Amino acid sequence: MKQTRIPIENIHINDSFWNGRIRNAVENVVPYQWRVLNDKEPGAAPSHAVMNYKIAAGLEQGEFEGMQFQDSDLAKWIEAASYSLLYKKDPEVEAALEEVIELIGKAQQPDGYLSTYYILKYPDRKWKEIAQGHELYVTGHLLEAAVAYYQVTGKDSLLKILEKNVDLIRSVFGKGEGKLDSYPGHEEIELALMKAYAVTGHRKYFDLAEYFVENRGTVPGFLVEESFQKFGERNKHHQADYYQAHAPIREQKDAEGHAVRAMYFFTGAADVALEKGDETLVKALEELWEKTVGRRMYLTGGVGSQATGERFTIDYDLPNDTCYTETCAAIGLAMWSLRMLRLAPRVRYADIMERALYNNVISGISQDGERYFYVNPLFLKPDVAHYRADHASVEPSRVKWFGCACCPPNVIRTLCGLGGYVYTQSGNDVYQHLYIGNESTLSSDAGEFRLTCESKMPWEGEARITFHGAEGVKLHLRVPSYAKDFTLKVNGKPAEYSVTEGYALLAEALHDGDVIDVNFVMPPHFVLANPRVTEDCGKAAVMRGPLVYCAEQADNFAYLASFRADLTKPVTMEQSDLFDGIVLLKVSGTRQEAAEWGENELYRDYAPGGFGEVPAELRMIPYFLWNNRGEGEMMVWMNAGKE
Amino acid sequence: MKQTRIPIENIHINDSFWNGRIRNAVENVVPYQWRVLNDKEPGAAPSHAVMNYKIAAGLEQGEFEGMQFQDSDLAKWIEAASYSLLYKKDPEVEAALEEVIELIGKAQQPDGYLSTYYILKYPDRKWKEIAQGHELYVTGHLLEAAVAYYQVTGKDSLLKILEKNVDLIRSVFGKGEGKLDSYPGHEEIELALMKAYAVTGHRKYFDLAEYFVENRGTVPGFLVEESFQKFGERNKHHQADYYQAHAPIREQKDAEGHAVRAMYFFTGAADVALEKGDETLVKALEELWEKTVGRRMYLTGGVGSQATGERFTIDYDLPNDTCYTETCAAIGLAMWSLRMLRLAPRVRYADIMERALYNNVISGISQDGERYFYVNPLFLKPDVAHYRADHASVEPSRVKWFGCACCPPNVIRTLCGLGGYVYTQSGNDVYQHLYIGNESTLSSDAGEFRLTCESKMPWEGEARITFHGAEGVKLHLRVPSYAKDFTLKVNGKPAEYSVTEGYALLAEALHDGDVIDVNFVMPPHFVLANPRVTEDCGKAAVMRGPLVYCAEQADNFAYLASFRADLTKPVTMEQSDLFDGIVLLKVSGTRQEAAEWGENELYRDYAPGGFGEVPAELRMIPYFLWNNRGEGEMMVWMNAGKE
Repeated sequence: MKQTRIPIENIHINDSFWNGRIRNAVENVVPYQWRVLNDKEPGAAPSHAVMNYKIAAGLEQGEFEGMQFQDSDLAKWIEAASYSLLYKKDPEVEAALEEVIELIGKAQQPDGYLSTYYILKYPDRKWKEIAQGHELYVTGHLLEAAVAYYQVTGKDSLLKILEKNVDLIRSVFGKGEGKLDSYPGHEEIELALMKAYAVTGHRKYFDLAEYFVENRGTVPGFLVEESFQKFGERNKHHQADYYQAHAPIREQKDAEGHAVRAMYFFTGAADVALEKGDETLVKALEELWEKTVGRRMYLTGGVGSQATGERFTIDYDLPNDTCYTETCAAIGLAMWSLRMLRLAPRVRYADIMERALYNNVISGISQDGERYFYVNPLFLKPDVAHYRADHASVEPSRVKWFGCACCPPNVIRTLCGLGGYVYTQSGNDVYQHLYIGNESTLSSDAGEFRLTCESKMPWEGEARITFHGAEGVKLHLRVPSYAKDFTLKVNGKPAEYSVTEGYALLAEALHDGDVIDVNFVMPPHFVLANPRVTEDCGKAAVMRGPLVYCAEQADNFAYLASFRADLTKPVTMEQSDLFDGIVLLKVSGTRQEAAEWGENELYRDYAPGGFGEVPAELRMIPYFLWNNRGEGEMMVWMNAGKE
Repeated sequence: MKQTRIPIENIHINDSFWNGRIRNAVENVVPYQWRVLNDKEPGAAPSHAVMNYKIAAGLEQGEFEGMQFQDSDLAKWIEAASYSLLYKKDPEVEAALEEVIELIGKAQQPDGYLSTYYILKYPDRKWKEIAQGHELYVTGHLLEAAVAYYQVTGKDSLLKILEKNVDLIRSVFGKGEGKLDSYPGHEEIELALMKAYAVTGHRKYFDLAEYFVENRGTVPGFLVEESFQKFGERNKHHQADYYQAHAPIREQKDAEGHAVRAMYFFTGAADVALEKGDETLVKALEELWEKTVGRRMYLTGGVGSQATGERFTIDYDLPNDTCYTETCAAIGLAMWSLRMLRLAPRVRYADIMERALYNNVISGISQDGERYFYVNPLFLKPDVAHYRADHASVEPSRVKWFGCACCPPNVIRTLCGLGGYVYTQSGNDVYQHLYIGNESTLSSDAGEFRLTCESKMPWEGEARITFHGAEGVKLHLRVPSYAKDFTLKVNGKPAEYSVTEGYALLAEALHDGDVIDVNFVMPPHFVLANPRVTEDCGKAAVMRGPLVYCAEQADNFAYLASFRADLTKPVTMEQSDLFDGIVLLKVSGTRQEAAEWGENELYRDYAPGGFGEVPAELRMIPYFLWNNRGEGEMMVWMNAGKE
């Protein structure tokens, strides 16, 4: 199903839930992160990202500092800042963008080379440490930034820099004699090349993306390098599967290895599959997606069960406290799911894309936008998280920045680029996946048409969509898997529709000025996990619509784990004044009281009434809001049943 | 309360539960481990322990191999082999002992120095790496071996070697000018010195023990060394508290750091406290013991919640799958508890001593005696244990030997030296702590007396004790905390008794030939954990008498965690033919069936009857027997309640 590219600059989000987040991102966080990247934000971990470019450009003296992929933090910021101009034409941001793009141009070497880590620190190791060097990853993020800057401003200054860089890469990598026959150590460039291909139409971008996707796992590539082998044969968490290089993509049975790498790889592979119309590749990706979300995904849309290797482990292994669930990996799952929607509009792809975005992705950023989670656990006990070695990656509270700062700018570019997740289109068939308020201009065979959407999601299942344009557009409206009593009205009157793969299509054709009311109910409810998941056996979680809820100590009591939900009693809603008036969910049940036990009394014989549970109620907030009121216990999965 | 030393050689275990284990240890395991220590056992990890001595003695060429404390493996074997002679006068073992003691003598340096690691590998670093060098630890274990060999054989050959070594240590360590004012990096020598003092009466052993116990945490000692500082300031798991050197013992609030070190330290400190009659030290140890077992001990008597640092973490932090619960640490807890019984005969010390011995200690060794656990988890899912980085220390099955092989010989010396745990004595007051069958000769003011005990423990609460001797002996019989309907009969007639601190004393004086029947009931029952223990909230375990039970996949089904115990239904007993006819326990409840869920279906909305639990029964075996029938899931704490 050939896709129609929807220019992101034509989608303007205007949504009661997201406006505040986007406005904060645009007005506060983009400037905040610019200060951080320029090392001008007190209290934040040093970035040095801009300084590295200045040194590489010969404008400053000094040495490279940071991770080998430090450049990518700046790249993601450029992407975010570019998108931010869609919401606010900020001359300071525009000037900063021009300045930093000029700087990158000056830092670029005559042959097109770009990574400041190797320019400044290890010039003799260029292209020799593909496994961990991240040169292609940096290019990928810069290329995504270049495309965003071009889409929003029409300026191709960064795109030209990147084109030269990509041309260099094409001369270095490939099947020809004297070429390096390999693939990226950290995937990212594949999907970026496909974005560049989409906006420029230059086939060379597609060719390189296809080569990287198809070549992976077919030749030894970087697996013969020292930078791969340094981890050692016995380090099972850093073998070929860590890099998704253990097999050609069509032979990969599960999402393995580093979760962000895997998500980015499958995203780029899906782009390539769509362009090629390659059914075997599509089928492989469909199976990988089903097994990933069906065996290795947290309820919150998080992926990556283990800090060591930041990676997938084995099926149904989903510890709630020591999980990794990196913010970037959830973004990657949303990106991949969006590509799956382009390959075939099936509602489960949209359900998971939405799940990731509304939970694990935005839990990565504080309400004020200036503090971030890298790891997004589903259970936290602060004293344990502070103390235990196996919780070393779990921050009990969001922090201002990270030494490895991939996540903060990734969240911001996702927020500012959220318009890209709302629709997909194939000819005259337009699919609305997310009920996010927006005003958009798209094109059909009959010319431009406009869609506006007002929405109360995720708090209420209500959206009003207005269509302006010529006839012929078929608008497929998602029926979320959680929606009950789904109805459509056209111009105030109940309308007939058919549902295919979870998308509703009106029986009547759309006419200029039609107003469609989408209504559904989202009762709060308990969710159970597959009993193969040890950590969730006998437990339940609470969801409403796309939102996973959690209990925080601030609204409840210490020792949250001592609560037991009575599943026979309904989850109830309460309008609160928390967080500008969110709906709280309340769960009835019982709990043990720690105070009934001696402090030096670990064990006790059971006697009738032995748990001594007392009636209790658990007040729950949306997961993404946790840890905005100081440090405390947090729990998603709770014991369920009766004493 | 001044203690009367009970010579271990006068206690001869003859017990239906322990005989087989001791016989196996004596007849098979002592020879097996001798082969391992001589690198003659195929498939076992290399030991090199004997070879190191041969090289140090100039009898072989080669280089030191193994850990810096490799000598201690051999030392523990000598201790075990010596005790084994109490049960079987094996000329081959006697010859091996003589040979190896002669070898140690030849390896000893003229000044008395003994550690082969430093003799062979780093002669210039002697006494310079006290934090991690383990020289004093090796001396401690050799000294314990020397005392055992002397007690059993009457030969002081090894004791003389060790006396020379201790004299060297006394010349090196101390408060005087030019002396090294420090304390052991790994405690052990303190309790060994107290054993040497007990059998020789030489005050110098006590003086050195007292110096090491009292000095710890009062001067910087090895904390100024490179061997301590190499772990770095930021490695919180390897600071002074790792070594129990963060404060003087009277100011230590909790058992901290490396669990084996802590247990050995408190054991030695209790020995010193008893000898000194030091009430402040006794009080500190009593508080430390109560807080350790009341906040940081697993149900099985295991201690040490974390592999990193093999250490204690924080109160109530008791993960069941990633625990460390080292076999040696449980042995240490049993040793410490025995010392607490000498300080004051309170039944809770005996309860915990017995708990450790019958659960975490003997789970460390397979039924055939040739395979060992270092880590003794309370929950195991093999695929997770094989895969996950945070399970790297958890062996899913016992192994033949370890590179760091502290545990295997430690279990064997404990089995062969079990007689030391049965009684304590203070003048004419004799306390029987464990109902382990034995024939023993002790002394009172009125001369020698004999006690024999026949027992059905731990399977039935029945013991028959026969007294032969003059009047005046007061036999205090433990009333275990789990005992119901405790009765005593003398010569077949119900007898009156009083109970003090959990010890029953007959109203009538003992007469020569009296036969005392001890009877109590041990109903199987559920146990609950303090709700401050996150991992055990809403869960129950099953015990009978001192035995903790566990469920194994072999007797049940896969996904054991999907079971839910109905606590309102009694735990029932079933005579089985497993393991020569043990009593199985059966728990009624329900379980979720994994087969009812799709393999790619991780989550499901709850609907009435949502867990879909079906009636189920869990068959449980004593914890110490787990993993004797191949690899599989194992679970101690199970979900409890009703759907």
